[in-house]
Amino acid sequence: MTHIRTARLSGVGVGPGDPELLTLKAVRLIHGADVVFAPVRRPGDRSLSLEIVAEHVDGRRQRVVTVPFPESQDGESWESAAAHVAEELGTDRHGVFLTEGDPLLFGSFGHVAAIVRTLRPDLEIEIVPGVSSVTAAAAAAGVALADYQDRLAVVPATAPHDQIERALVDFECVVLLKVGRVLGELLALLERLGLVERTVYVRRCGWPDQQVVTDVRALIPSPPRDYFALLIVRRR
Amino acid sequence: MTHIRTARLSGVGVGPGDPELLTLKAVRLIHGADVVFAPVRRPGDRSLSLEIVAEHVDGRRQRVVTVPFPESQDGESWESAAAHVAEELGTDRHGVFLTEGDPLLFGSFGHVAAIVRTLRPDLEIEIVPGVSSVTAAAAAAGVALADYQDRLAVVPATAPHDQIERALVDFECVVLLKVGRVLGELLALLERLGLVERTVYVRRCGWPDQQVVTDVRALIPSPPRDYFALLIVRRR
Repeated sequence: MTHIRTARLSGVGVGPGDPELLTLKAVRLIHGADVVFAPVRRPGDRSLSLEIVAEHVDGRRQRVVTVPFPESQDGESWESAAAHVAEELGTDRHGVFLTEGDPLLFGSFGHVAAIVRTLRPDLEIEIVPGVSSVTAAAAAAGVALADYQDRLAVVPATAPHDQIERALVDFECVVLLKVGRVLGELLALLERLGLVERTVYVRRCGWPDQQVVTDVRALIPSPPRDYFALLIVRRR
Repeated sequence: MTHIRTARLSGVGVGPGDPELLTLKAVRLIHGADVVFAPVRRPGDRSLSLEIVAEHVDGRRQRVVTVPFPESQDGESWESAAAHVAEELGTDRHGVFLTEGDPLLFGSFGHVAAIVRTLRPDLEIEIVPGVSSVTAAAAAAGVALADYQDRLAVVPATAPHDQIERALVDFECVVLLKVGRVLGELLALLERLGLVERTVYVRRCGWPDQQVVTDVRALIPSPPRDYFALLIVRRR
């Protein structure tokens, strides 16, 4: 009997930075892959997700392909990224597509998967969830996100201010992602809403230079502009 | 030189059901623990989190202690659970406190940790995030939760209907947790808001009897009442 392999793509969440936050399933799939796809923000950049899994990848045995990550939802750039992935897999190769954190929570694997599915309906696609930066930051800060009847909102910090304000007023816990350049404005908003004391700042969660700031008022005079930073606001 | 051990407690997320979704860190800490605390809903119940990690626990070498989980926020019952944990750790034992999913996202380790901290300020407490049922259900269903400017709300299905409705109208994605007995009412609400076609039902995510229902309209005549079930509603 001949065992027929079909091409397969696994979107694998690798957690937020700490290689120990990889799941056993992620490790197994990475070990078994023929091709490891590592997204980068711009061509030539280092891939953070590839750094997280480095010790599980064997460059002599496995092909490592970096995939520049479209910065917008623009269909065309996603299509060329997805076409590249489909082509690398050929008829019988197994690929893992790495994502920092989780593949479907601001991880963009959804875009890749949707287009690959239309290009290559024969291809098996599987998604492996990972530890997200939201829960990892809460763990680093020792702040409970939600319990019992609490509601949690996860909002990109670049959303319109009225949306952010509505979430802050309405939800017991709000996580503001990618605070980067808007941290100063957000701190002013939190001050106005009386929530500064209820806010924690977490930067580069899971990485060796991770920083947790519980006295966020101290950041107001000169707010850092780190892209990989988030705020956790607990109303209670 | 004498190495002095102090008592230590690690709140460890074990993911939503599939033992392969354990993190490497969870496995290491469970292996190294003197005491494994496994929450149960009622005394005598089986512990789901203990089942998830069963192959990593050695009952001859390690003490396994089940901790009945208070069903409310009532301080007294939490205090007796936390006192029990503190007592088991003595002066120099390492304990892991298991939580299905993530310890701080409806995981209730926050309560235990807060009380243990006041009872035993000498004790080191660490929190290890886990894969949450929210992202695991999205992966099982192949539904992207959020990307770019999207906002995600995570709301217990037992929240007041006006709160749920506001989230459904306002957020690009809403995850309704623990739909259990209220599934019928929720489906009626989703029907009224024109969102039934945009909803996926996931039951017992990560367990062998996991079920994903994409045609949720089919559930309306006789809604299942499984406690460990959630709905993902994607407005776009």
